[in-house]
Amino acid sequence: MSNQLPIVDDVCCTPLVREPLTEPQAVELARMFKAVGDPVRLRLLSLIGSHDGGEACVCDLIGAFDLTGPTISHHLKVLRESGLITGERRGTWIYYRAEPDTLARLSTLLQPAAAVTA
Amino acid sequence: MSNQLPIVDDVCCTPLVREPLTEPQAVELARMFKAVGDPVRLRLLSLIGSHDGGEACVCDLIGAFDLTGPTISHHLKVLRESGLITGERRGTWIYYRAEPDTLARLSTLLQPAAAVTA
Repeated sequence: MSNQLPIVDDVCCTPLVREPLTEPQAVELARMFKAVGDPVRLRLLSLIGSHDGGEACVCDLIGAFDLTGPTISHHLKVLRESGLITGERRGTWIYYRAEPDTLARLSTLLQPAAAVTA
Repeated sequence: MSNQLPIVDDVCCTPLVREPLTEPQAVELARMFKAVGDPVRLRLLSLIGSHDGGEACVCDLIGAFDLTGPTISHHLKVLRESGLITGERRGTWIYYRAEPDTLARLSTLLQPAAAVTA
């Protein structure tokens, strides 16, 4: 049985079923999970990540919610400050992308034991 | 270098970079992420998941925190109600395990585009 993990070494971490988190690691990672612990932000992240070309502007997102522009912008700011999305201004709009390194880190962290020891 | 992550097909869902979440999906999943969006609960989950034999009782956990037993028990209840851990009473103690299907579901959901399209 191999314990080798299919992880992206330069961005990743250890699955939590393999090694307990330290307190500073837990504080940092809990902040990211808290950011996606909200249905609107989780849907925003999925809309951005699955959008054509892997990016979306507020103009692409606002129609999916019964929320004002400033509320959407607030949620985007939380996702951005947690490192889950990045934004790039082009012309009138900021285009957002899911941050692959952050997603990979959280995804690997949550791998179950079966995946870790497979 | 392969970015592909192991997916457990029978319990899993679609990575959010592939398909937007529906509102009910987002509500259900956000509840789980909110449960790990707290440093104490995230450390508890990692201590349980990485403990010898993949299970731990409160007696194994309490020493890692400067918190009372009832506070630890409250956080364990939140993890349990969110489907992240299960508990089984044996004698004096309840033994907790990380729930592999829930971890696999959240891990797959967060897979980055590189892992999904690899």
